[in-house]
Amino acid sequence: MDSRATTGRPSATARATSADTDTADDDDTDDTAPYPRTVPDSPMSDYTVADHLVDRLAELGVDRIFGVPGDYSLAMLDHVTHHPTVRWTGTTNELNAGYAADGYGRLRGIAALCTTFGVGELSAINAIAGSYAEHVPVVHVVGAPALTKQAQHRPLHHTLGDGVFGHFTAMHADITCARASLTPDDAVAEIDRVLREVRDRRLPGYLVVPADVAAAPAERATTPLPPPVDTTDPEALAGFVDAARRLLDTAATPDDVAVLAGLSVHRLGAAGTLAGLLAAGPLPHATTPWAKSLVDESAPRFAGTYTGAASPPATRAAVEDAAVLVVAGVTFTDLDSGMFTQHITRSRTIEVGPRSVTVGAASFAPVELPTALAALTPLVEEVAARRTGPAPSAPLADPTPAPAAAPDDEPLGQTSLWQEVSGFLRSGDIVLADQGTSFYGMAPHRLPQGVTFVGQPLWASIGYTVPALLGTCTALPGRRGVLLVGDGAAQMTATELATVIRERIPAVIVVVDNDGYTVERAIHGPDESYNDITAWDWTLLARAMGGGDTVAASHARTVGELRAALADADAHPERVTLVQAVVPRDDVPELLAALTRVLGSAPAPAH
Amino acid sequence: MDSRATTGRPSATARATSADTDTADDDDTDDTAPYPRTVPDSPMSDYTVADHLVDRLAELGVDRIFGVPGDYSLAMLDHVTHHPTVRWTGTTNELNAGYAADGYGRLRGIAALCTTFGVGELSAINAIAGSYAEHVPVVHVVGAPALTKQAQHRPLHHTLGDGVFGHFTAMHADITCARASLTPDDAVAEIDRVLREVRDRRLPGYLVVPADVAAAPAERATTPLPPPVDTTDPEALAGFVDAARRLLDTAATPDDVAVLAGLSVHRLGAAGTLAGLLAAGPLPHATTPWAKSLVDESAPRFAGTYTGAASPPATRAAVEDAAVLVVAGVTFTDLDSGMFTQHITRSRTIEVGPRSVTVGAASFAPVELPTALAALTPLVEEVAARRTGPAPSAPLADPTPAPAAAPDDEPLGQTSLWQEVSGFLRSGDIVLADQGTSFYGMAPHRLPQGVTFVGQPLWASIGYTVPALLGTCTALPGRRGVLLVGDGAAQMTATELATVIRERIPAVIVVVDNDGYTVERAIHGPDESYNDITAWDWTLLARAMGGGDTVAASHARTVGELRAALADADAHPERVTLVQAVVPRDDVPELLAALTRVLGSAPAPAH
Repeated sequence: MDSRATTGRPSATARATSADTDTADDDDTDDTAPYPRTVPDSPMSDYTVADHLVDRLAELGVDRIFGVPGDYSLAMLDHVTHHPTVRWTGTTNELNAGYAADGYGRLRGIAALCTTFGVGELSAINAIAGSYAEHVPVVHVVGAPALTKQAQHRPLHHTLGDGVFGHFTAMHADITCARASLTPDDAVAEIDRVLREVRDRRLPGYLVVPADVAAAPAERATTPLPPPVDTTDPEALAGFVDAARRLLDTAATPDDVAVLAGLSVHRLGAAGTLAGLLAAGPLPHATTPWAKSLVDESAPRFAGTYTGAASPPATRAAVEDAAVLVVAGVTFTDLDSGMFTQHITRSRTIEVGPRSVTVGAASFAPVELPTALAALTPLVEEVAARRTGPAPSAPLADPTPAPAAAPDDEPLGQTSLWQEVSGFLRSGDIVLADQGTSFYGMAPHRLPQGVTFVGQPLWASIGYTVPALLGTCTALPGRRGVLLVGDGAAQMTATELATVIRERIPAVIVVVDNDGYTVERAIHGPDESYNDITAWDWTLLARAMGGGDTVAASHARTVGELRAALADADAHPERVTLVQAVVPRDDVPELLAALTRVLGSAPAPAH
Repeated sequence: MDSRATTGRPSATARATSADTDTADDDDTDDTAPYPRTVPDSPMSDYTVADHLVDRLAELGVDRIFGVPGDYSLAMLDHVTHHPTVRWTGTTNELNAGYAADGYGRLRGIAALCTTFGVGELSAINAIAGSYAEHVPVVHVVGAPALTKQAQHRPLHHTLGDGVFGHFTAMHADITCARASLTPDDAVAEIDRVLREVRDRRLPGYLVVPADVAAAPAERATTPLPPPVDTTDPEALAGFVDAARRLLDTAATPDDVAVLAGLSVHRLGAAGTLAGLLAAGPLPHATTPWAKSLVDESAPRFAGTYTGAASPPATRAAVEDAAVLVVAGVTFTDLDSGMFTQHITRSRTIEVGPRSVTVGAASFAPVELPTALAALTPLVEEVAARRTGPAPSAPLADPTPAPAAAPDDEPLGQTSLWQEVSGFLRSGDIVLADQGTSFYGMAPHRLPQGVTFVGQPLWASIGYTVPALLGTCTALPGRRGVLLVGDGAAQMTATELATVIRERIPAVIVVVDNDGYTVERAIHGPDESYNDITAWDWTLLARAMGGGDTVAASHARTVGELRAALADADAHPERVTLVQAVVPRDDVPELLAALTRVLGSAPAPAH
């Protein structure tokens, strides 16, 4: 802070004087003091802590902040709505703000939401935990009672009534990588620290901003945040390269070297580096479902989506039988690995983790993933140079070939639904598949080049994708969103359709109407009442939420009705298209059936 | 456990044998093992930990469990759906299940919800924190991965992926009075301990039930839980009575002794004891808004709802100018006390807290509130015996007299809306007022005898009342629910209207359509975009969510249209009546205006 700051916080001083009344609580106005910029004779407060926070977020790439206002955050929000490049995007509730921010953060590398103390932040906490589990950088900004009020330790609204204000920060300890409760003295430094951690660790961070701290003066930053530092140790890297070369020497041609790529490659910004490695062979390759769309699935050497024993045989063979396998950025989770049925032979595997690498039994650290992938590329070029004949040009056999197209009058089912949706996709689409039959239905389908796929197979919080549609499509404006969600999941977060409609998100929304929690029925209790839900008319719902001429909503009970709705969506890209796709109650996609077989319990028969 | 249990858990044994395959994960079926009762040759597993839990909840008065199923809780839910007296009530999402349970627990003294690990429990955590802040006994049961799976420490879905399963229990530490993660050995004892704490402390409790523990055998309890114990110390009580008698000796007649009653009287089950105390005078009395409907507001000696400096003058005088004031079970919070502008003179006050009492400057503990109120009653009778003339029979002047009825064609406004709604109420109604203009609009209105009022002025989580309608009306079947909620609040939790409709709750729902967060506008940013919301057609929404002939939905823009809708509701009590009541955007109830005046910022002008 410069010398001006040492003269005191003028707005607080002015307030103490004018509020010199006979009430016992003369600083009650702190929380609701007008935005200091409106005080023309107070130039020192022109730039505030709130401004610094929003400017830093903008510097990192944030142009939207999601959330719900509350009286403890209102004054801070003025600094958002008046910012030149950042826009406020109100959602219907805080959980949905968290999901929207998660979607935005996945595709933009950073996101922010703002909620109010207690009630707001705790409503969003499931989304924040999901961002932590799935490695999404989200900054959760919480508007809190003024420090002057906190110091009185009285029972304020949105608290537990015990005069203690640290409960909710403690509840964020395990699900955020960095936290700060700002004070006027440390606000700028703490904001910078938390934002750097979020950016560099790709995990959520948490900032509590008391109302008076938000309005406190701050110096405008003159330099950007320092860039991330590559912590790779040169000797560890050299050791890795030597070991990797020795293993790769056992490969006769690049066809003997396969790559299985996972989520961390995306999160660490190494998709381009991976593409270079794959092209150097070219190498046959697969991804896990969690990393779906990390690679161009239309490429000739794409071998499919690997899910352990639930994989298509050709995909399984490509991964498990490779002479040398590079496993890059993969964490095997239960739903991502066919319930831990992956079969990876360590002695012929090069495993690239976020900050360490392993060749056979030898580990090297610290070596960062992007650096390791870049170092492997010339080694693969050496293998490619050993090839005597031309590189194969024919694509690998499609591990999941599409069946013959169904006739128009065939009743819609899980197989035809996902086949038609897959055929409808085009480059640039953002596909969101909720963690139910939508995810398992779409995961095996080969995507066109340039499609982005978003799912949540570790945290697996159903309903996530409805608000995430808002987040992903505002993160990458101009791209079409294709939302695939079951009716039970969509009911959880349906209110956010209103915001999708209001914001005129170009989107095609397929609500799979199968009368309940079908993925749960497949596991247990196919006829139990707890898997039932209430039947909704989603076309009416869209109208109720403000969708007039801007929404085209219809039911599809046959393949032909679905085709017509999708064709209509193509013809009217400016509209939101909502299709309530009616399929049999207990019909499940083949991958889900395979997973439940692996689980040891047969799926319920389709009927 | 009896000796049978020492022979091992038969279902687990059987499973290990049958699952002796070549997969590396032969206990993956644990989470989804069929309900043991279906194993006819396994009598030892006939009665399980899950059965004990549900039976104990039933013993305490629970006949509904709210929640959303998940694969970790499915097998446990079988024990709910097959229970003879407990019913499963699925909600659209877990936050709403928590709110519904809170509403149920307020009116029934205990409630339960069941969610799944991670995603489910964290979605509900804001509701649980609210139950803690507002002293509502709710048991949160969480279905978790089987202990056999947890022991492998692998990245299961709905976890943070780090193999650690205690994160979410830690997050419940500050917002529950008792917690347990059950094991087969301690399950019965820990269930009993947590349930007793919830019952006796009137706070939420948290039970993690791993899937295999739910299915573990348990002995059927032969005795009920021990009843609560009165911890009052006789000497402390005697000292209190002496001191209270000396203070009451300064009162010439019962008219000089006023009572201000608060929330804890209700929560500690002492409403009847309080009524006896009030009748012994009879004593003039008031409540805070938090305790609204604790007393019969139609009684002649009812002096109104006390909110510090924002109170009507007659109410303020009755409380603050009393020669002796009994303050019973009151905690002054900001919104409950006119922003801490209460004026209580300690030297002439008897303060009865939950477990301690104070007379002037002297404190006595432990003395429990119901015991203290009962002990005061004969002292008040002594004061009444000093009265020389007859007790006054005329009621106190109504502190908030109703204005003249508005003509039918007058556009609806905040004043006429709450006046009409108040006139519509009848004995037996459960009125839920969301913490916005609905709460402030209704709080000053005198309720008919036998009306129950539910609000949430400390936690103040907007949207609470929509699911709470489901909870309160299932807690007290046969009573009519009257839900009063602003549009911004209702959008947060609107999906639960579907469950209200499905369960055929007899209810009148007034959605106050004032185009945004009006209570926030009154505080800050009347024209800022963050206080805007999307306009919905609530009548269409009800139809979309399954409301056909069972719902009557209409718009009311004039006083006459509101009267017609309410008359229609009276004529068709079997239906859900939904009224979208359109009022001016910045119109605010008088109490809210008074509170913002106290806050030092004038409310936005109505227009």
